[in-house]
Amino acid sequence: MIYLDNAATSFPKPPSVVNASANAMRFFGANPGRGGHKLSAKAGETVFECREKLSEMFSCDVERVIFTLNCTHSLNTAIKGILKKGDHVIISALEHNSVLRPLETLQRRGMITYDVAAVNPNDDEETAKNFERLIRKNTRMILCTYASNVFGTVLPVKKLSSLCKRYGLLFALDCAQSAGIFPVDMKKDGVDIVCAPGHKGLFGPMGTGVLLFSERVTVESLIQGGTGSLSLQKSQPEIYPDSLESGTVNLPGIAGLSAGLDFIKSVGGEKAIHERETYIMNILKEDLGAIKNITVFEKMHGKIFAPTLSFFVNGVHSEQTADELDEKNIAVRAGYHCSYLAHNFLKTTRSGTVRVSPGYFTTKEEVKFFAFCLNKIAMSRKI
Amino acid sequence: MIYLDNAATSFPKPPSVVNASANAMRFFGANPGRGGHKLSAKAGETVFECREKLSEMFSCDVERVIFTLNCTHSLNTAIKGILKKGDHVIISALEHNSVLRPLETLQRRGMITYDVAAVNPNDDEETAKNFERLIRKNTRMILCTYASNVFGTVLPVKKLSSLCKRYGLLFALDCAQSAGIFPVDMKKDGVDIVCAPGHKGLFGPMGTGVLLFSERVTVESLIQGGTGSLSLQKSQPEIYPDSLESGTVNLPGIAGLSAGLDFIKSVGGEKAIHERETYIMNILKEDLGAIKNITVFEKMHGKIFAPTLSFFVNGVHSEQTADELDEKNIAVRAGYHCSYLAHNFLKTTRSGTVRVSPGYFTTKEEVKFFAFCLNKIAMSRKI
Repeated sequence: MIYLDNAATSFPKPPSVVNASANAMRFFGANPGRGGHKLSAKAGETVFECREKLSEMFSCDVERVIFTLNCTHSLNTAIKGILKKGDHVIISALEHNSVLRPLETLQRRGMITYDVAAVNPNDDEETAKNFERLIRKNTRMILCTYASNVFGTVLPVKKLSSLCKRYGLLFALDCAQSAGIFPVDMKKDGVDIVCAPGHKGLFGPMGTGVLLFSERVTVESLIQGGTGSLSLQKSQPEIYPDSLESGTVNLPGIAGLSAGLDFIKSVGGEKAIHERETYIMNILKEDLGAIKNITVFEKMHGKIFAPTLSFFVNGVHSEQTADELDEKNIAVRAGYHCSYLAHNFLKTTRSGTVRVSPGYFTTKEEVKFFAFCLNKIAMSRKI
Repeated sequence: MIYLDNAATSFPKPPSVVNASANAMRFFGANPGRGGHKLSAKAGETVFECREKLSEMFSCDVERVIFTLNCTHSLNTAIKGILKKGDHVIISALEHNSVLRPLETLQRRGMITYDVAAVNPNDDEETAKNFERLIRKNTRMILCTYASNVFGTVLPVKKLSSLCKRYGLLFALDCAQSAGIFPVDMKKDGVDIVCAPGHKGLFGPMGTGVLLFSERVTVESLIQGGTGSLSLQKSQPEIYPDSLESGTVNLPGIAGLSAGLDFIKSVGGEKAIHERETYIMNILKEDLGAIKNITVFEKMHGKIFAPTLSFFVNGVHSEQTADELDEKNIAVRAGYHCSYLAHNFLKTTRSGTVRVSPGYFTTKEEVKFFAFCLNKIAMSRKI
């Protein structure tokens, strides 16, 4: 199988990730932070080490690194735990449903309002101005994706951060497609909230997500329960990370994620990974450029882009093309990629798009074979 | 290490669980339900198979079996997704903080009210009457633990179910300590909601929980986002399980849980597990009965009990006793076990209790060695 669906989850995982996860289960699979005995302490240390690595990676206080089920869980915790009645939020036109739907839910409940800023991938100034134009008196936060999960478009993060600083807004990033590829230094870059999956660019197992937030932010718990601390208190404790991590954490997942973070370091960090993936992506784009009868959303890539690209074979539903590629043992994703906004923005709601997303382990030969097969599929449609 | 902390998480896991989890990562670690390609389909099948097994085990429609991060996540989803403004809930005096704290949060917000019913472990009639006495016009639900995580006390589930039927109330069970040991047939037993961890009696990995609910119940989502379905809809889809499983599910965890459910079947089901654990528990109780200078909460066990028992060495804080046992390589848990209510009920808030919870793999020799060590520790305190 040629796996070109890394925007959904990275695969394969480095063997060290699988081993770390399995070994946590095998050798010290006790409940971390729920007991004082040696096994529980070892489990607790494993969780803490991963927290420390993330703290260092994103420049965030260690107690403000929260483990969640997935990036969606992180985003919901941030959105519902930070926003107050009457707040206004600005998001981009490329947001995933995990940003849109919680906001839409709160808006329908009369809690908050939000607006959507258009994105011009080739004019960061214009994009930033689109956001600025939407700022109102009660605007509290700009929340946007670092990189589009459909088109690979990278948003002008630094410009938006400056905008937030200028207007005293909170700046929240959905790093679902960027974590592990584009570094974020929360302190230097002026980012207040980072939400990321553990299982994509950070190479951890599915079942892991992270939420990081700065000292400027207070986050109320979405889920209350046992925290292994202050058990004799009727109400949820207010200390971090405890207040936001009720119930047993995903020890094997976090152990695997910790190994994933080590893997990133071992290959030279986000920069090296981004370079590798851009190299592969450029080969792919060149080969796709030579195929007739397909529409490639390459213009959605500015100078810098995430390793994700959307296209369709003209007049053919994206699902059909993906099925034909699957017959050649090539894994891509078709459809709408959980993104109502992006498809409305690009007017691709009819057939959806085929999304191709190489990963760190994707080879030149694999993307060339993919382009070869796609050419055949597209040619057969011309007749 | 002699592991007697199975009430926190079961350990060790059957090797098949670790292997299933690692193999899911290794061989088909694609995002389930997020693509049509072979790897994603295989991942999706694995998740569906586990859903089917749980559906059969608990007599619940397969689409109403929801995967969560942990039992706390399940309980919060049920509590916040089902209760409406003005509702009243009755819980027992033995609830875990994962039941108490979400209710306390909603009560403080003026959403709902709740009352706490006393439990007499040796008089089920009395316990049921304590619940009945608290029923008001606006009572919507009885929500209680199947078995106490501190004392192993089993609540009169059938009597409470009848009570709910008689008064037209919903009946919700926190099966954190009972799933995999005491079977629940939701249809026959008249149970509307079951919340359970995947990683305790069901032998799955940490990072898994389940929520099951009957057709009488509608559950609103706590977390909204991408569901891999109806992507072009701005609002959260309303179909189950999609609406309650936003974001990527824990594939390796669910694959492991699926193997855990197979393990339960392979050894003869819940009944065989309960018999084995009761046998071990009775040996333990006999040996503890011979130790002087300790207080054992054995009277909290009725005729039927979960394999969990609390005690303390007289005049010594529970943490110290647990530390001394840890020195002998015996893992138990001390303190308050995330249970404000239970410790207030039993007046054990001063020193907490040492909780000993054998599991399916615990041997007679292990509990005998534990009792031997505890005797030494208790004797040394008498001087």
